[in-house]
Amino acid sequence: MSEKYRICLDVGGTKVLGAIFNEKREIVHRLKKKSKGEGSLTQNIESVIISVVEEMLQESGISKKDVIAIASCAPGVIDQDNGIVLFTPNLPMRNYNMREAMEKKFGIPFFVGNDVNLGVLGEYRYGAARGYHNVVGLFVGTGMGGGLILNDTLYTGHLFKGAELGHMVLDPEGPLCGCGQRGCLEAFSSKSGMSAYIRQQVSRGRESLLAPEVENGVFRSKKLKKALAAGDAVAQEAVDRSCHYLAVAAGTLINIFSPDLVLFGGGVIEALGDLYLRKVLTEIDRYCMTAIRPSVELKIADLGDDSVIYGCLALSEESIPG
Amino acid sequence: MSEKYRICLDVGGTKVLGAIFNEKREIVHRLKKKSKGEGSLTQNIESVIISVVEEMLQESGISKKDVIAIASCAPGVIDQDNGIVLFTPNLPMRNYNMREAMEKKFGIPFFVGNDVNLGVLGEYRYGAARGYHNVVGLFVGTGMGGGLILNDTLYTGHLFKGAELGHMVLDPEGPLCGCGQRGCLEAFSSKSGMSAYIRQQVSRGRESLLAPEVENGVFRSKKLKKALAAGDAVAQEAVDRSCHYLAVAAGTLINIFSPDLVLFGGGVIEALGDLYLRKVLTEIDRYCMTAIRPSVELKIADLGDDSVIYGCLALSEESIPG
Repeated sequence: MSEKYRICLDVGGTKVLGAIFNEKREIVHRLKKKSKGEGSLTQNIESVIISVVEEMLQESGISKKDVIAIASCAPGVIDQDNGIVLFTPNLPMRNYNMREAMEKKFGIPFFVGNDVNLGVLGEYRYGAARGYHNVVGLFVGTGMGGGLILNDTLYTGHLFKGAELGHMVLDPEGPLCGCGQRGCLEAFSSKSGMSAYIRQQVSRGRESLLAPEVENGVFRSKKLKKALAAGDAVAQEAVDRSCHYLAVAAGTLINIFSPDLVLFGGGVIEALGDLYLRKVLTEIDRYCMTAIRPSVELKIADLGDDSVIYGCLALSEESIPG
Repeated sequence: MSEKYRICLDVGGTKVLGAIFNEKREIVHRLKKKSKGEGSLTQNIESVIISVVEEMLQESGISKKDVIAIASCAPGVIDQDNGIVLFTPNLPMRNYNMREAMEKKFGIPFFVGNDVNLGVLGEYRYGAARGYHNVVGLFVGTGMGGGLILNDTLYTGHLFKGAELGHMVLDPEGPLCGCGQRGCLEAFSSKSGMSAYIRQQVSRGRESLLAPEVENGVFRSKKLKKALAAGDAVAQEAVDRSCHYLAVAAGTLINIFSPDLVLFGGGVIEALGDLYLRKVLTEIDRYCMTAIRPSVELKIADLGDDSVIYGCLALSEESIPG
């Protein structure tokens, strides 16, 4: 019998990342394509996804009939049971039946889930969270992503809208968040939140090496690392504030869940590592209960950019075992 | 065959409440006994529990051999799988194997769980939360209790220490909480938190009808209701502050869980009802995401003081079906 393969897709706001896994869960082929940005229509994203799958098959020489499943993420609210993208804040998909479209195109079983949720699932099955049972995942990137494994199952809540950990309200009078609330974790701790803080300080006449970076958007994590190394006071304040609120949120989540693991990941933590996390760890004990803290481990995610791809693999395996 | 019965026990800091259920889940006998207060030893509480069971059997004429299970709650961290009371903040039980003690005494299968968790389980099986799947329970009493039903299962977390919703940190610089943290939901919204606020205002020379009530402790809910009706400004401030923080916490919990129900209960809400809850409902939309809020119902618990007793019934039925 010939080897069987699974195709996994990380569909983001600006790119589609593809990987083909063999039966040993090794990635045997990869492809990355830019999608056409925020203004693109569902059809355009669909066509990028289709071309990533087709080109990967062509380049690898793997036959479509040997692919037993395709699994994808999308950034938004996903009806995982029926393969429908209900709502995406940054992509023009509304009630898009991705399963139907993809199964019609390829004739291969198709699955889709939320990107951050699948990232946590990937770490839980194949990364730093293996062997734990109740995992709170916090991912510091452009936004602030969250995911929950509870009693060994990915928790998605009623109508798949759960685990919006980035939108815990930490200060009802705090800065406006992209979601419309004030003082969300994301508004303080994400790259967007930190960039807004730096922008505000620069507009008051203070200096920062990140001023040009944040003028019209969000700094890159590597630039942040450089600014900190150069002793940039404003950048340091933004990071300290980010860490403070992340510690408060993580403490509260420990009290809510009594998890056996809190997993930290995302671009900022990948770039800064302990430089960032040390400050979180120093503060976290203040914001969780003495009786719970000793039974919680804190770790950094270890699959990096591949966590979502591995989460797609796990999603497809839960539906179609190997 | 003779009718079978279940004995359920609500063991609190100052009293033991007992009930005998028949097969139709009707309470056929009740008994309430005061326990000997905070200083009592495990043996004393044990002896009160034993005498409640024995007297109920005697008074009702029900034979011990017709009782198929005894289930109890205790206020603290309970190893529900093994029937061990690990830790109770207000009772002198540490690593107390309640199952072993009670099964040795009565020869009847015995189960024990955390009081607030079982209260939410009771409402979920037999009360206001029936038919929902993901329930966040918030109980405003002397403390602030929380319980979680997730994917139709009582969530207790790693080592049974989860669902401490009363200890979400809402203001890291806020008032000291009994748990040692600052600015917990409990420190603002519980009767203890409201009483502390009133005590502080009275000590500043302000007047409140509740001054004598809070001098050395916590006001009674009925007295609070009277004070509000009489236009007591300090009492009103305490309630407004309580409602504000409860709304912030409930909003955040909605974002975290996407529950289909948030259930409010406890002595304060039983006594004040809409007078209290209306203020929470007015604010809550500000603190949860627009995309999630429409799919969440908000309700008041309806089993009152019996919610825990019904939770014990549910716990025993999960282990020994009828």
